[in-house]
Amino acid sequence: MTGFPLHSDGSNAADPWEVPVRVAVAGLGYWGPNLVRNLYENPSAELVRVCDLRPDQLAVLQGRYPGIARTTRFEDLLEDRSIEGIVVSTPVSTHYALALRALQAGKHVFVEKPIASSSEEAAELVEVADDKGLVLMPGHTFLYSPPVNAIRALIEAGELGDIYFISTSRVNLGLHQSDVSVAWDLGPHDFSILRYLLGETPTHVTALSRACVIPGTPDVAFINLEFASGTIAHVELSWLAPSKLRRTTIVGSRKMVVYDDTSNEPIRIFDSGASLPNPETFGEYKMTYRTGDILSPRIEVAEPLYLELDDFCASIRSKVQPRSSARLGLEVVRVVEAVDASLAQNGARVEVGGSAALTAV
Amino acid sequence: MTGFPLHSDGSNAADPWEVPVRVAVAGLGYWGPNLVRNLYENPSAELVRVCDLRPDQLAVLQGRYPGIARTTRFEDLLEDRSIEGIVVSTPVSTHYALALRALQAGKHVFVEKPIASSSEEAAELVEVADDKGLVLMPGHTFLYSPPVNAIRALIEAGELGDIYFISTSRVNLGLHQSDVSVAWDLGPHDFSILRYLLGETPTHVTALSRACVIPGTPDVAFINLEFASGTIAHVELSWLAPSKLRRTTIVGSRKMVVYDDTSNEPIRIFDSGASLPNPETFGEYKMTYRTGDILSPRIEVAEPLYLELDDFCASIRSKVQPRSSARLGLEVVRVVEAVDASLAQNGARVEVGGSAALTAV
Amino acid sequence: MTGFPLHSDGSNAADPWEVPVRVAVAGLGYWGPNLVRNLYENPSAELVRVCDLRPDQLAVLQGRYPGIARTTRFEDLLEDRSIEGIVVSTPVSTHYALALRALQAGKHVFVEKPIASSSEEAAELVEVADDKGLVLMPGHTFLYSPPVNAIRALIEAGELGDIYFISTSRVNLGLHQSDVSVAWDLGPHDFSILRYLLGETPTHVTALSRACVIPGTPDVAFINLEFASGTIAHVELSWLAPSKLRRTTIVGSRKMVVYDDTSNEPIRIFDSGASLPNPETFGEYKMTYRTGDILSPRIEVAEPLYLELDDFCASIRSKVQPRSSARLGLEVVRVVEAVDASLAQNGARVEVGGSAALTAV
Amino acid sequence: MTGFPLHSDGSNAADPWEVPVRVAVAGLGYWGPNLVRNLYENPSAELVRVCDLRPDQLAVLQGRYPGIARTTRFEDLLEDRSIEGIVVSTPVSTHYALALRALQAGKHVFVEKPIASSSEEAAELVEVADDKGLVLMPGHTFLYSPPVNAIRALIEAGELGDIYFISTSRVNLGLHQSDVSVAWDLGPHDFSILRYLLGETPTHVTALSRACVIPGTPDVAFINLEFASGTIAHVELSWLAPSKLRRTTIVGSRKMVVYDDTSNEPIRIFDSGASLPNPETFGEYKMTYRTGDILSPRIEVAEPLYLELDDFCASIRSKVQPRSSARLGLEVVRVVEAVDASLAQNGARVEVGGSAALTAV
Repeated sequence: MTGFPLHSDGSNAADPWEVPVRVAVAGLGYWGPNLVRNLYENPSAELVRVCDLRPDQLAVLQGRYPGIARTTRFEDLLEDRSIEGIVVSTPVSTHYALALRALQAGKHVFVEKPIASSSEEAAELVEVADDKGLVLMPGHTFLYSPPVNAIRALIEAGELGDIYFISTSRVNLGLHQSDVSVAWDLGPHDFSILRYLLGETPTHVTALSRACVIPGTPDVAFINLEFASGTIAHVELSWLAPSKLRRTTIVGSRKMVVYDDTSNEPIRIFDSGASLPNPETFGEYKMTYRTGDILSPRIEVAEPLYLELDDFCASIRSKVQPRSSARLGLEVVRVVEAVDASLAQNGARVEVGGSAALTAV
Repeated sequence: MTGFPLHSDGSNAADPWEVPVRVAVAGLGYWGPNLVRNLYENPSAELVRVCDLRPDQLAVLQGRYPGIARTTRFEDLLEDRSIEGIVVSTPVSTHYALALRALQAGKHVFVEKPIASSSEEAAELVEVADDKGLVLMPGHTFLYSPPVNAIRALIEAGELGDIYFISTSRVNLGLHQSDVSVAWDLGPHDFSILRYLLGETPTHVTALSRACVIPGTPDVAFINLEFASGTIAHVELSWLAPSKLRRTTIVGSRKMVVYDDTSNEPIRIFDSGASLPNPETFGEYKMTYRTGDILSPRIEVAEPLYLELDDFCASIRSKVQPRSSARLGLEVVRVVEAVDASLAQNGARVEVGGSAALTAV
Repeated sequence: MTGFPLHSDGSNAADPWEVPVRVAVAGLGYWGPNLVRNLYENPSAELVRVCDLRPDQLAVLQGRYPGIARTTRFEDLLEDRSIEGIVVSTPVSTHYALALRALQAGKHVFVEKPIASSSEEAAELVEVADDKGLVLMPGHTFLYSPPVNAIRALIEAGELGDIYFISTSRVNLGLHQSDVSVAWDLGPHDFSILRYLLGETPTHVTALSRACVIPGTPDVAFINLEFASGTIAHVELSWLAPSKLRRTTIVGSRKMVVYDDTSNEPIRIFDSGASLPNPETFGEYKMTYRTGDILSPRIEVAEPLYLELDDFCASIRSKVQPRSSARLGLEVVRVVEAVDASLAQNGARVEVGGSAALTAV
Repeated sequence: MTGFPLHSDGSNAADPWEVPVRVAVAGLGYWGPNLVRNLYENPSAELVRVCDLRPDQLAVLQGRYPGIARTTRFEDLLEDRSIEGIVVSTPVSTHYALALRALQAGKHVFVEKPIASSSEEAAELVEVADDKGLVLMPGHTFLYSPPVNAIRALIEAGELGDIYFISTSRVNLGLHQSDVSVAWDLGPHDFSILRYLLGETPTHVTALSRACVIPGTPDVAFINLEFASGTIAHVELSWLAPSKLRRTTIVGSRKMVVYDDTSNEPIRIFDSGASLPNPETFGEYKMTYRTGDILSPRIEVAEPLYLELDDFCASIRSKVQPRSSARLGLEVVRVVEAVDASLAQNGARVEVGGSAALTAV
């Protein structure tokens, strides 16, 4: 363990008087240009170089950002002593190797989710970063989403009571990935959100999946999760769906919340519930149902990716762990691995490896 | 096996010139009055007597239907030789005993879902009914729902292609049952619909459940189902929800359907899909996505319960099995039992008992 | 003017110890059976007789309510000295004559909206009722609708601020009336609601209409209304529409409300608005927009028709004007007449006759 | 009249082998950057210069498009002989003067809607453009919207039958304009759409409006329109609304369409209607209602602004009038003027000036 303090609950507020963090971006595929744009516009960062193996991808970027240096050699980033942080946005299979080399070169690292292809690799990255006192931050963007943070605040304030269960659907038509399953592709979003909302990682996982279109690449998954607190959750993931759904229902003992990330009213709070006034006299069983007001609170409009990269820069300057911490990223990988293990055993119930030890992070 | 022919695919059309079937209703609780009203209005039936242990329930009915005889003794129905069929709408725990006595007394029996509390009981009822050549019909009302039948017609016509997966949510705030879990209460609806749509019973079940409000009575369940054809399904059931959902998504290889039983447009057909034009050259992986028209077909407005009771009467007269057959009811009980078995084993994957042998019914 | 006090703001609360009001219903067409059912179930009323010219309509009712006397002669109601109130639910063209005869026979009168076919007739009815100290109540059911009353409470409490404008749509496919235009058929609903919400009757009306299907019977109308307070309103009415809309938007200086009578959340309160912080320095024009929370308050579930007939009975006993007063009914007729006048003059702007003198009622 | 042929029904297809049209943009306020971006990306155009009086606006653009020359002098555009077309995106009050100077300098002109502040000015521009054989194109972007064109195709094919009426709402919270009313700001959108869909300009207008927030600047308007064909329409415009609405209902004698520009399913076609099978025997009045399928056709995704500017370039090369023709722009201004005239006369019914003569364009 390094001298890093535990991360504060809020995001690290970037001090505008700080010297901007000099960063480079590696990987200009589907997501990379979004990272480039946000770093370019963020005064906390100074984007000095971009890297991609494909010259044509670099050329595209040159048109928009002629002032940014380009290279096809990742080593150029490592060797440039002026670069403080490297943002890795390459295929999942390369995350581990590139992040490791960057850390070994003394760079702070932001790496797109999942942080690595296995928990073993992820744990090694965490260890190296700790040893070297470097920031290692996975790109769990939803931890910076205003609706997600509004729900977390409700839960922390006790507004929802105990969380009975959560049911979530993240489905859409496309985009099939050729190298990973839908659980690896979309699962990290929900697993990181659940971890952030509930403050715990599931202990057990059961999953059912099917490779409908591409043989060997599951494109739909039904995943059941159990938490130590008693909360249960279901996560439905799919690249095959009639329409886009980003819907999460959170049922608490006091109130319920529906979070629909595609809606103009992303959060709706239902002051509804059921209770058993006198459970001991159960023979005189009499439920009480309450249906009250429904509130759509005003949610701040902000780009999560901007806030996320801001937290990366602030973390480097402040030495405080980012909200999307490397350990959270490791836990997420462990959940995805448990999903894979369950699928490999025909849907058996699988324990999430060593999660108990990590929930205190 | 009796001389009953296999049931025709359509419902048995009641011949208006037939003599109405003389029926009695036992059980005037929450659902019974709906059965009474529908039998009263159906010219294929002649409702001659109602039975309930509670005189006040009988009195309520007398106000509305003064011409119908009443009794608190079930035996009165059995002993009345003019009564041909008995409609059982009592608590689930009494279904088996009352249905058995009615069959033994030579009466045709309609019994609310689930047909019995265990597959052993259900199988015995099926056998007795077969032996005696009597109609035994469970009340799986959704088999008579116009939207469900419209979807079945689409599937049978091949419009949807192969059914990749089905995801369904049946949640609402209330009504907690004191004697059964949410899986026994709501599950039979979805399990009978899936059986009817797919023509097969699941082979394996995995379930996760929680008793949130009443200790010992699970009020939320996440159920994963596997079918021999390769289709997979997820069924979410709950008595705790911010708002009523009756939503089923069916994803086929050619089209997709969303069935929302609470909507004015209960069925929406999406001419959308994904395909892999040349799967053999997988290295040259290139998915094709298609997003086409969306159609909300006009759905006939009809009360499923009326059609269901009509089928009961017609089945008695025609000696043709009703669409909601006793064997289908037995299969449904087997699935619920498998859910219970999975829950008892901490969510283990459980084989649905003997389902393979019954799918040909 | 009789000794009737002005009506209290709330509805007249029926005292359960009062002797039930003996009433009769005349007219058993489309709406009459609803009146019969509600009177039958209301302990404040004793429905003693029903009247219709068509024996078959009477026969239908006999099946459901065998204890209620029937007649084809309206005179039988007038001559029955035990009858205190007559509920008139006949075609609009007969409202005036039947209500007048009932009042002259000393009966309290509830008459379906509109109270009469012309303001001249309506005014005469008001005068006769006043002279005789009888209740004359038009059936403006929406004045008893829980959502409408919730909105009125918001306005009265100043929650919405000044009412800038109201826009409302009441459209559906059907049912074309053969004897009246859509403005006479549907207009009274919105005109009575606006009168109730705003506490004033419009001063001027402009209308555009078209008889699309039945020559001479307008089935769509666009009606603009001006009020003395400065509020403006638009009312869209139609029997031709792709789907049912019952949507009213109320824009106030502080908040805005959307009232959708077809929704599970009939009222949505938007804490949104625009303001001009410093209007005097208009050259430095700088608008401020505020978009805040959205609230769907819990609305009591109650049948407006029941509450309305309850108010009729209570008014008879208490001698307090019903919420849906005869003068309000007269004002509504004046607005519809102004619509007709505007249409007769090719859409000219028309003053609502004498409305100013009546707004203090 | 010049040698311009009448415009073809489809858009002018830009020939990729043509030399790109050299254009300049004047006015870099709210909308100008969108024009710049689209021209920059369109191979049919070569954006050579931008002009704005404010150096800081020019500086902003320099960051994004360093290769484009800049000037604060409009004269620079006029004097640059290499510039063929000028795109005017300045405040409405300057449209006439700038467009006129550009035409007089021999430039083709694209000018944002409305084409001018009065029909007199607009007519003069049309005349000058005709005299000089130059393209004069107002920016009625919705004429290039895929949903609008899909509806127009339905109408032209007779799918909807006769158009009975159209009701449309274009409301939102903001943005109040300081120099023009909501009718001048938003009205041109709907008036141009109606003109394009119906092929005719309204003959008469009645309007009701109110300046709720800024004294003297109406921010809500209810506008009734009559067409020679018998079609009627209502247009609701407002900068004050609880939520954004872009909803148009088109009721035809055969089918109905709802066009919601904010929806993923912008067009919904309802196979519904009402008819009077035997109108001559009206005494035997019997309406027939039909409620059939609802279809959401797949609508091509394309940016209307891109297509619009493409049509501008193509029109310059082909000498064929653009779909958004100057005459259509003139008619739109005449309708807005009629709205103003109606408002000035307290909502009187006003004839749209000379519209009859122009509908054949």
